[in-house]
Amino acid sequence: MLRLSLVVILAELAAGHIVPRQTDIDYSSAPPNLSTLANETLYSTWRPKSHVLPMYGQIGDPCMHYTDPATGLFHVGYLHNSGLSGATTDDLVTYTDLRNASEPFIVAGGINDPIAIFDGSVIEHGINGTPTLLYTSVNYLPIHWSIPYTKGSETQSLAIQRDGGRNFTKLRHGPVIPTPPFAANVTAFRDPFVFQNPQMDSLLNKANGTWYNIISGGIHGEGPCMFLYANHGDESDNYQTWEYMGQWWHETQNTTWSEAGWAGRWGFNFEVGNFFTLDQTGYNPEGEIFTTFGVEWSYAPIKLQVSGEHDMLWAAGKQSIIDGKLKFEPTMAGRLDAGRSAYAAAGKAIPSTSQASRKSGAPDRFLSYVWLTGDYFDQVDPPKSQQNWTGSLLLPRELSVGYIDVIDNDLAREEKTSWRLETEHNNGTVTLATMNQKIAREPLAAFKSNTSTVITQSGGTRSSSGTFDRSPKSRQYMFESSITFFSRSNATKAGFEILSGAYETTKIYYQFSNETVNIDKSNSSAAAETNDWVLTDTESGKLRLFDIPSANSTKIEALNITVVVDGGLVEVHINDRFAISTWVWSWYEDSRDIKFFVEDGEIEFGETTIWEGLVDAWPHRGAPFHETS
Amino acid sequence: MLRLSLVVILAELAAGHIVPRQTDIDYSSAPPNLSTLANETLYSTWRPKSHVLPMYGQIGDPCMHYTDPATGLFHVGYLHNSGLSGATTDDLVTYTDLRNASEPFIVAGGINDPIAIFDGSVIEHGINGTPTLLYTSVNYLPIHWSIPYTKGSETQSLAIQRDGGRNFTKLRHGPVIPTPPFAANVTAFRDPFVFQNPQMDSLLNKANGTWYNIISGGIHGEGPCMFLYANHGDESDNYQTWEYMGQWWHETQNTTWSEAGWAGRWGFNFEVGNFFTLDQTGYNPEGEIFTTFGVEWSYAPIKLQVSGEHDMLWAAGKQSIIDGKLKFEPTMAGRLDAGRSAYAAAGKAIPSTSQASRKSGAPDRFLSYVWLTGDYFDQVDPPKSQQNWTGSLLLPRELSVGYIDVIDNDLAREEKTSWRLETEHNNGTVTLATMNQKIAREPLAAFKSNTSTVITQSGGTRSSSGTFDRSPKSRQYMFESSITFFSRSNATKAGFEILSGAYETTKIYYQFSNETVNIDKSNSSAAAETNDWVLTDTESGKLRLFDIPSANSTKIEALNITVVVDGGLVEVHINDRFAISTWVWSWYEDSRDIKFFVEDGEIEFGETTIWEGLVDAWPHRGAPFHETS
Repeated sequence: MLRLSLVVILAELAAGHIVPRQTDIDYSSAPPNLSTLANETLYSTWRPKSHVLPMYGQIGDPCMHYTDPATGLFHVGYLHNSGLSGATTDDLVTYTDLRNASEPFIVAGGINDPIAIFDGSVIEHGINGTPTLLYTSVNYLPIHWSIPYTKGSETQSLAIQRDGGRNFTKLRHGPVIPTPPFAANVTAFRDPFVFQNPQMDSLLNKANGTWYNIISGGIHGEGPCMFLYANHGDESDNYQTWEYMGQWWHETQNTTWSEAGWAGRWGFNFEVGNFFTLDQTGYNPEGEIFTTFGVEWSYAPIKLQVSGEHDMLWAAGKQSIIDGKLKFEPTMAGRLDAGRSAYAAAGKAIPSTSQASRKSGAPDRFLSYVWLTGDYFDQVDPPKSQQNWTGSLLLPRELSVGYIDVIDNDLAREEKTSWRLETEHNNGTVTLATMNQKIAREPLAAFKSNTSTVITQSGGTRSSSGTFDRSPKSRQYMFESSITFFSRSNATKAGFEILSGAYETTKIYYQFSNETVNIDKSNSSAAAETNDWVLTDTESGKLRLFDIPSANSTKIEALNITVVVDGGLVEVHINDRFAISTWVWSWYEDSRDIKFFVEDGEIEFGETTIWEGLVDAWPHRGAPFHETS
Repeated sequence: MLRLSLVVILAELAAGHIVPRQTDIDYSSAPPNLSTLANETLYSTWRPKSHVLPMYGQIGDPCMHYTDPATGLFHVGYLHNSGLSGATTDDLVTYTDLRNASEPFIVAGGINDPIAIFDGSVIEHGINGTPTLLYTSVNYLPIHWSIPYTKGSETQSLAIQRDGGRNFTKLRHGPVIPTPPFAANVTAFRDPFVFQNPQMDSLLNKANGTWYNIISGGIHGEGPCMFLYANHGDESDNYQTWEYMGQWWHETQNTTWSEAGWAGRWGFNFEVGNFFTLDQTGYNPEGEIFTTFGVEWSYAPIKLQVSGEHDMLWAAGKQSIIDGKLKFEPTMAGRLDAGRSAYAAAGKAIPSTSQASRKSGAPDRFLSYVWLTGDYFDQVDPPKSQQNWTGSLLLPRELSVGYIDVIDNDLAREEKTSWRLETEHNNGTVTLATMNQKIAREPLAAFKSNTSTVITQSGGTRSSSGTFDRSPKSRQYMFESSITFFSRSNATKAGFEILSGAYETTKIYYQFSNETVNIDKSNSSAAAETNDWVLTDTESGKLRLFDIPSANSTKIEALNITVVVDGGLVEVHINDRFAISTWVWSWYEDSRDIKFFVEDGEIEFGETTIWEGLVDAWPHRGAPFHETS
């Protein structure tokens, strides 16, 4: 009988906070209703080690990341405790809380934001050259796209960095964008994202270097949209005046880019819209226009204020002047993360001059942090007091334009997908373009170099499942592998089982029948029996494996997979262009095995490398990270 | 030796407030520095009896008068105690506080108005048919035309009548006009005045009966203006959406209608703008367009946030579409009250169906209440604790279009004046039009009918001053008289002395040298010696007496004067078109005489009638009014 003896920690932190006390829990027998446990007893059970999350409590949307020009440190922010908290990093691997115990550096309760603070973004050389935050100041709640909008609920206000970002001081004046456009019956009006864009300057006849922002939302009865604003006035105006330039992007409500499912639904309301421009190496002001954004939608019938489906999408496209207004039209769109709890990604251009990029030699990049909500958008009720944290950010991702040479066939030529045709060649191939997204190079390298244990598992051709020769002992590891399919048989499923043991297992697999990557959580957690909040639905996202040239023939593009398991958090990245993340509330101590998973087909596995250990992202938090191994 | 024994009142009011205690003060010898006296000892000394002012404390701008459609009662409102207080009247003579001790029915401190509430106005059949207040909700202070404007300081919000006006409940949404027009660097943005106007409907192609409002203010470096808004959206919008229609009226900063002084200065900033339409009998939706408004200006050099000259003006004119925008251009303008402490008038159309009008048989009227600030716009420091009230409203005035047939000469033909040429006749005369303003018929009649004492003083031709045969014993009275001048000699001054005695006297006189009505306060108050706040400057206002036809000759238009003395408050009304009001801090008990006043000329006085007593405007305040006689 396995019995896990957990460290009981009573040390008091310098900040005066008590490190969570974890008493003995038996991870070898079936779990109780976890809400019956003592407070904080589950603190370490599923807590990620290498991800961004606050020391305690719930994390909300990531936002307002920026590189402080004064230090070169990259700041990562997130909604937390009625305000915004954050951390700095000089390597994108380890982080330092801006304030003790992840306390917020700005909180609601001012004249402009008496009720709440929502997402903001930062002009790095802002007022007096100081990082300046444009954020949503909230005056009335509730706000939801399915109910009438309370006029004045959301306005956009400024705050200025003090003390290296440990404070953001609200400017002593009213909101700089005090209202949605005239007479617009909005569904939301929030999450201003600031940016500069030379093409926009040109198309709108604005001065070079003009600051813009897009505010996400929608119009009741019409559909989701992004409202475009241009900074107006000279430097002395201190970003107080923003001119409304129209709806930069609008989609008809309750429609989708493609019923084939490449890009979720446009839904009824946009949130957290980011605007940025990419090329093949990363961020480029002259690059192709991209946006990431969350969408809110619902299955029918819509339940007022309850309907809570979310998709985290990206789109790329072209902007042009139509009827005097600058309009965006997508050329491709996809899911930034196919996990149903993944949402509210916030990105930022991070210059090559930032401390992290200097160390790693990275060029100008656009990094995005996706949020993995810990309570499925407040729709389930996890044992928050027992865990004393809820939700996490996912690892930062580098976004860029990706190209792939594929056979010119129907698979490549489908329209309204997450790729577009870039070039037709004479040899029966085409080059497709898409958005690439990769785990940022720094944590990826750190996980490999800082590992305590490297396990190499040979692959080979398989037509049945089988356990790895050796599996990680912990739930902190990353592995890379590849799968080659020899046919597109609808019956075939192939991938891996992780966190697998006598009672639990989680299957990650690809299947051709609907071209999806799936995470089967039906048997992931023994806690599901006694805990309603443990969702067992299969996570699923659409990914096409193209036909690619091979010698004098063609073959199916290989599936190159990276899986990060960090406590209860599982990230799956495939072929630099697909990600699906989820929580796996694996309970049993023996649920550690990795297995090959194959059904109804023969496929070839490449060599798998497992790097166990990951890196403690929070070395300065006073208490060491306690792994549940 | 005179010694006044004052009633000492100890009774406690129902509301739990203590009636001011007035201890013995010797009004027969020179006054001390009054701020050395005990609190409340001056409560009755100069307190008006027949005017609108709160039971205790300071009165600010009158505003938000309305006739409650449910009761027919006319509501008079005013700024008071960080909010708005008010009273109802069924006869325009007596008033009933809406709340005990004149407590406000709406106060600052909500989400929209955390700092202050400024003037508002009422849509009588508003949301759900209920009186609905549109008022200025204040978020930041200070605000002054001479300093940079803090963005977002003033927004316009809604509140709805409850409990017969004893409460106005703020609507649970943001400001309905959350910002001045885009990129307008305003000097102020306040005092929304709501109205309907068929001509505006037509010129702006709006639906019949559209609600408009003008917001008063100005633009830094440009000048004062009134911003026009039109209600937008259907009934279900509940007055939440107002469309900006441009600057209805704009004047260049620091200019004037006429350097001759008919209408003060346009100044740097407009306040409390009212819009209404008049004919000869009173309010008429199809009538001539009038506005009353306060202006803020300064003598050079401008002292930041201190410069505090004010004029209370009216203008009439025409509106037309110029370059696609509705613009107002004055045809005549004048002072609504020439007193330097008179300001912030607020008017309202009062229908013939109101209780007061039904009783008096009055037609639809436009009534205006002018404020007489008790501390000269916070620029002097009266003994507020000793008095326990500060400032008052003046008697309501009926505004209408007035016509006068005069000789067609240069006096009549001057341009940019407070009158305009209406008709040229064949007989050497012209009809001029101007704005008439008369004390409302109800208080005027009540003062005459409710009087305890009527004194009739015969007139006659005089070339020197002389005391009336009999003067009032109190400082609560009204008198009417007339003066006929035989020549326009520049040297001649003629009028009356009031509150006159061995040590003090106040001269009210007309002089041709600069065509002014003057109130000489140089010797009005013995308190001036020991009290800096007692201003002794002469009050002065411009009034032209025209030449008018007389038999086969011409004569100078008679000066028909009505003087109301109510405690320290003195109102002077002349020829239905001129008013000048001021505080007279007469101290000595023997300063009660009325005298004829003539200098350097011979003039004829008509019969003078004095009605002593006036009427207690507040019969329900629990304590009787205590006259200082």
